[in-house]
Amino acid sequence: MTSPFVSDIPAEQARRAWRDACAAAGCPPRVDAVVLPVGEAVGRVTAESVWARRSSPAFDSAAMDGIAVRSAETVGAAETTPVLLDDFAVVDTGDPLPGGYDAVVMREHVHHTPDGRAELRAAVPPYQHVRSIGEDISATELLLPEGHRLRPVDVAACAAAGVVELLVRRKPRVVIIPTGDEIRPVGTELGPGEIADTNSMMLAAQAAEIGCDARTTGIVADDPDLITAAVRDAAGDADLVILIAGSSAGRDDYTARVVAAAGALAVHGVAVRPGHPVVLGTVAGDPATPILGAPGYPVSAALTFDIFAAPMLAALEGASPRERPTTTARLARKLASAIGSDDWVRVRLGRVGGDVVATPLPRAAGVLTSLVRADGLLVVPAGVEGHHAGEQVRVELLRGLADVERTIVAIGSHDLVLDVAASALRAADPLITLASSNVGSLGGLVALRDGLCHVAGSHLLDPATGEYTLPYLDRIFGPHADLAVVRLVHRDQGLLVAPGNPLGLTGIADLTRPDLRYVNRQRGAGTRVLLDHELGKRGIDPTTISGYSREEHTHLGVAAAVAAGRADTGLGIQAAARAFGLDFVPVAREPYDLVLRAAGLDDEVLAPLWALLEQHDFRNEVEKLGGYSCAETGRRIR
Amino acid sequence: MTSPFVSDIPAEQARRAWRDACAAAGCPPRVDAVVLPVGEAVGRVTAESVWARRSSPAFDSAAMDGIAVRSAETVGAAETTPVLLDDFAVVDTGDPLPGGYDAVVMREHVHHTPDGRAELRAAVPPYQHVRSIGEDISATELLLPEGHRLRPVDVAACAAAGVVELLVRRKPRVVIIPTGDEIRPVGTELGPGEIADTNSMMLAAQAAEIGCDARTTGIVADDPDLITAAVRDAAGDADLVILIAGSSAGRDDYTARVVAAAGALAVHGVAVRPGHPVVLGTVAGDPATPILGAPGYPVSAALTFDIFAAPMLAALEGASPRERPTTTARLARKLASAIGSDDWVRVRLGRVGGDVVATPLPRAAGVLTSLVRADGLLVVPAGVEGHHAGEQVRVELLRGLADVERTIVAIGSHDLVLDVAASALRAADPLITLASSNVGSLGGLVALRDGLCHVAGSHLLDPATGEYTLPYLDRIFGPHADLAVVRLVHRDQGLLVAPGNPLGLTGIADLTRPDLRYVNRQRGAGTRVLLDHELGKRGIDPTTISGYSREEHTHLGVAAAVAAGRADTGLGIQAAARAFGLDFVPVAREPYDLVLRAAGLDDEVLAPLWALLEQHDFRNEVEKLGGYSCAETGRRIR
Repeated sequence: MTSPFVSDIPAEQARRAWRDACAAAGCPPRVDAVVLPVGEAVGRVTAESVWARRSSPAFDSAAMDGIAVRSAETVGAAETTPVLLDDFAVVDTGDPLPGGYDAVVMREHVHHTPDGRAELRAAVPPYQHVRSIGEDISATELLLPEGHRLRPVDVAACAAAGVVELLVRRKPRVVIIPTGDEIRPVGTELGPGEIADTNSMMLAAQAAEIGCDARTTGIVADDPDLITAAVRDAAGDADLVILIAGSSAGRDDYTARVVAAAGALAVHGVAVRPGHPVVLGTVAGDPATPILGAPGYPVSAALTFDIFAAPMLAALEGASPRERPTTTARLARKLASAIGSDDWVRVRLGRVGGDVVATPLPRAAGVLTSLVRADGLLVVPAGVEGHHAGEQVRVELLRGLADVERTIVAIGSHDLVLDVAASALRAADPLITLASSNVGSLGGLVALRDGLCHVAGSHLLDPATGEYTLPYLDRIFGPHADLAVVRLVHRDQGLLVAPGNPLGLTGIADLTRPDLRYVNRQRGAGTRVLLDHELGKRGIDPTTISGYSREEHTHLGVAAAVAAGRADTGLGIQAAARAFGLDFVPVAREPYDLVLRAAGLDDEVLAPLWALLEQHDFRNEVEKLGGYSCAETGRRIR
Repeated sequence: MTSPFVSDIPAEQARRAWRDACAAAGCPPRVDAVVLPVGEAVGRVTAESVWARRSSPAFDSAAMDGIAVRSAETVGAAETTPVLLDDFAVVDTGDPLPGGYDAVVMREHVHHTPDGRAELRAAVPPYQHVRSIGEDISATELLLPEGHRLRPVDVAACAAAGVVELLVRRKPRVVIIPTGDEIRPVGTELGPGEIADTNSMMLAAQAAEIGCDARTTGIVADDPDLITAAVRDAAGDADLVILIAGSSAGRDDYTARVVAAAGALAVHGVAVRPGHPVVLGTVAGDPATPILGAPGYPVSAALTFDIFAAPMLAALEGASPRERPTTTARLARKLASAIGSDDWVRVRLGRVGGDVVATPLPRAAGVLTSLVRADGLLVVPAGVEGHHAGEQVRVELLRGLADVERTIVAIGSHDLVLDVAASALRAADPLITLASSNVGSLGGLVALRDGLCHVAGSHLLDPATGEYTLPYLDRIFGPHADLAVVRLVHRDQGLLVAPGNPLGLTGIADLTRPDLRYVNRQRGAGTRVLLDHELGKRGIDPTTISGYSREEHTHLGVAAAVAAGRADTGLGIQAAARAFGLDFVPVAREPYDLVLRAAGLDDEVLAPLWALLEQHDFRNEVEKLGGYSCAETGRRIR
C-alpha cells in the first residue's frame, strides 16, 4: 500500500481541522472536573467560577498600632484644647476593633498621662485607621472566573474567602508511543545504526512542564499492526496520544495509515519547517481520543509539541495556552526562507551596543543543539521570503532578557578555549553567558564591523606579510577604526590522522597523494587560509587534493570525519585530535586573537572575560587541552 | 523590651546586606549537588558543565527518501547522457548510509528501469543528502554550562550525547513558620477576630512554583520563646526559613528580636511598599541558615517572597532568578507615590485602541484580590513621585499579553450583572476576560473619554430632565462625539436594611431619623446622585443625615457594612441585599447602560459581549439575581 500524500496545510488551518475532527469523532471537549483542597489546586484550571463564601477581613480591625477610641468623644480636640480619654484600648495593626470603638489613633499621636489617660490634640473622624470588614473580599463577589489557571495568590484569596475546595480540571493525560526498529531506550549501549529514544523523554518533559501527566510506552517496531495495537491501547487512558516518527511518507512511515485505520486522519503534513511531516487525527473509541503523529527529527518533534499539542492540551483544560514573551531584535545576518511554510528559526540573542541582536542558528531539523543554544524563536511566516541583515524582527524568548543582557556575543573562528571560557565564566557567575557562533575568522570580523558581536575570534594569516589578523583589520574596518586586539592563545595546527597515522603522513606535501581523502574547513576559516598558504608556499594546486571541496565548519567536525573514517586527514588543532583520540602531525603554531571595538575594553559585559584571562587556573586548564600556549594570553597587541 | 527600630533600606542594598550576613554566618553558598538520571533532571540546575560523551548522530545517514549511491559512478550523468546504476540501495530519511555508498539521490530524481536498474540524469557530488556523523553534536564539545536550568530539549540533547546522568543542585528546602495567636489553619471554623492561615499556603505554593520543596510547620503562638524554638528547629533541615507575621514593631512583633537571638539580624525594614516591615537575617547552626521575616499582610507577604526569597533561592541553586516578561503601557489615571520607597502597584491591563492601558488597582497591603486581579506589576522607584495619567510606564506581566489583547475593559459603575457576564464569557471562551474597575458612573465616562476603557457602565440620573446618562454625554464628550449607548438592565435601587427591617424604614424620608446610621456611596457614583436627587425632591438637607459622609465604593461594600451592623442602612441594589441576606425597601427603578465609542459596536473584542446580551440563559440568570429586568437588555438607545 502506498502512503497517503503529504499535504502542506497552514498551521492555524491544521489546528482547526484537528479540532473539528475531534468534535466530529466525539472526543471530550474538556477533561473531567475534580474537587481538590484549595492548597493542592495551584496550577490547575477552574472548572466553574468561584464566588466568595465570606468577607475578608471578616471583622473591623486596627490598620495602625495605637489606641482604639470612640470618635464622638474626640470632638473638639485641638492643640489648644486637648481631650483626655479614660476609655480607650491599646491595639496593634490587625487587632480586631474592640466593641464600642469606631476609630484608631496612631501611637505617635497619643500622649499617655501619668494617671493612665490618653491625651489627644486632634479630633478623629469615625473609622479613621480602621480596616473595614470586606475591605479585601465581599461575601458573594466573583473571585475567579471559570477557565482560570490557579496561581499561589489565587488559592490564598479563595481560602481567605472561605472557599476551601475547588472544582478544577484534572491534569490531562498524555501517552507517548516511540516507534522505530532502530530506536533503543536511553542509557543502553547503541549498536551501529541504532538511535537513543531521546524524543520520548523530551516530549514527556514538555507535557509535564505545562502541567500534564505524561507516560511513555515501550518502543514499538516498524510494523503497522503492532503500532495500531499500541495506539488503540494507549488511547484507552489518554487525553492525547503522541506517536513518534513514521509521520512522513517513506516506506516505513506507517503513522498516517495507522491513524486512518484506528480512527480518522485529519491532517498529514503542515506548512511548518521544521516539523512539516505532522499527522493529526483521532483514535476511535468510547470516547475517541486525539492523536498527534510527531516527526522523528528532534527539533521537529519539539516544535510540533509547541505548535499542535500544547494548544490542544490547553483547550482540554479549558484554559488559554501559555505564551512565550517576545522582544524585537536586529537580525545579525541575512535570513532566507522558503515561501509556503512558516519557518521556525532558532536564534541566539545578545545586547550589542543599544540593540538586541539575533544570530540565526543551524536550521536543520536534526540539530537539537540549535534549540538548546537558542535564546529565542523567530517565525518567518509562510508568505515572507526572509529578512535582510540588520532588519528588526520579533522573537519569542526562550531565555530571560536579563540573561541576554549579560551575554558575551562572540562570532568568528571556533576554538575550544572559547568553550572552556564559557564554562568557567558561568561557573563563576550564573548570570554570565559566553555565546560563540562559528562562522570562521573572516565572518567574525565582518560581524564585528556590523555591530553584531562583542568580540570576533580570529587567526587569519596574511600570506603576503606572514602576519596574523592585524593586516585584515584596515581592509575590513577602514583605516581609522578604533579597534583593540587581545591575544587569547597560541595553538598548534596540524594534520589530524587516524590513531597510529596508518598512512604515515608527514605534512602538507603528502596531501596530494591520490589514495588520500582530505576534509577541509569552510571558506573564510583561518585554518582554510593557513592550508592555502602552506599549499602556495609549496606550489601545490588545491584541485589536486581529493576532498579539498568537502567543508566542515569546526575543528571537531573535521576530527569527527577523520575518526569516522569518512576522511583520512584534515587540518585542525591538536585539542580536536585529542578529543577524538586521533594522532596529530604538527604543521604550524599560530596566534588566536580576540578582536573588538576599543570601547569594549571597558564594557562591563566583557569585564569578566578579561578577568578570566588573567587567572592561572584558567590558563592551566587551557594548556592541559594540549597544543596551546598561554604565554601571551590576555596581552593587548593592538 | 522595646522592639528594634524599623529602618528603610533600599531593596537592592537589603539583598546585599542579607547575602553578606549569610556569608559571614557561614551559610552554604549553594545547596548540595546530586546525581540524577537525565530524564528526571528537568527543572534542576547543572552543578558542573556538561560535555558530549559521543557524537550525534553517531553515523552517516540518509537525509532524504531515495537511493544511496557511489557518487563516483554518477560522474557524467546528464539529461542527454543518463547513467544506469546496478549498484544502489533504497533508503528512507534517517536510515544509516549502507557501507560503500557516499551520497543519496532523492526518490523524485530516480527512474527505476524495468530491469531493476536506477537511471540518473544528473551527477551527484559526494555526501549529497547525507546527514553526517556529528552534525548535531560532536563528541567532547560543551553541551551545557554549569548553572543552567535544564529544559526538556536540554536533557534530550544530553541523552543524545551519551550523557545519561547529570550532576545537578537538589531542590532548595523552604520551611515556613506561621505565627500569631489569632491565626487558624485553613478550613477550620473561624471565631471572632480569628484569621485563616492563607499566607503559609501562598508562600509554600510560591516556593514550589520556582522549583523548591516547601514545608509548613504548625502555627506558633505570639511567644518569643516558642517562636525562637520553632525557628531553631526549622533551620535544622531548611535552606531558607520564612517566618510569617510579627515582622513589624508592634507589641506582639517578635520576629526581629527572635532572629537577633537565634542568629544575626541583618535588615529590619526595607524601602518597599507594600512589604516595608521585612526582617532579613540568619539562624546560627552548623551550617547557619538564612531566615526571612515576612509581613502578615497578604500582598506584602507575596511580594516579599518575589523580592527577597526568590533571588536567594536562585542563588542557592547557582542559577539566575526567573524574571517576568515586561511590556510598556499607558497609565489609565494619575498615580501618586510616596518618595523614599519602591512602590509596587498592581495594575489591570487591556488593549484599548492601539495602546495597552494600565489601570492601577487598590494599593492596600491587605487587599490580596488586587494581586489576584492584577495583570501586571508597576514599580514606581523610591526616587519617583508618581506618574501622570496617560504616561507610558513599564509593567511586569503577571498574565500573557495574548490574554490581555482579548480583555474587555469596563470602567465605571459597579453592577453584579458585570460579574455574571464576566463569568459567562469566560465559561464560553477561556481566552475572554471582562475586567471591570469600579469608579462610579462619572469616573467611567471620563475614562471612556480618555480612551482608557472599551465600555463605561453608567446609571447617572440628570435631576433636571429625569433622564439617565444621555444628558451627561455631551457635557463630558462634547456635542459631536460618536458614541453608542447599549442598555444592560433595569434594576431596583432601595434601602438595604437588616433582616426584618428592625427600624421599620419605609423610604428616603426616614433617613433623617436621628437614631439612624447611614452608609453612603462615593461622589460620582450613580447611586449617590440618585440619593441626592431623592433628597432634593423632598427638600432634605444631606448634612442632617448622620453617616452621609461615610463612603463605600460598591453595592456589596454598603451591604457588608449594614450586615456587619456598622450602619443601619444604605442605598443600593436588591442583588446586594440578597447577597448578604438583608431586607430591601424599594426606592426607584433605574436603567443601567453601557456607554462606548460607536466604533466599538464592530470591535471584535466586544463582539462576545453583544452576543451574550442576546442569550436567554444569561438574561434568566440575571433576573434570578432579583431586582433586575432584562426587557431592554442589549437594546441600543443611542
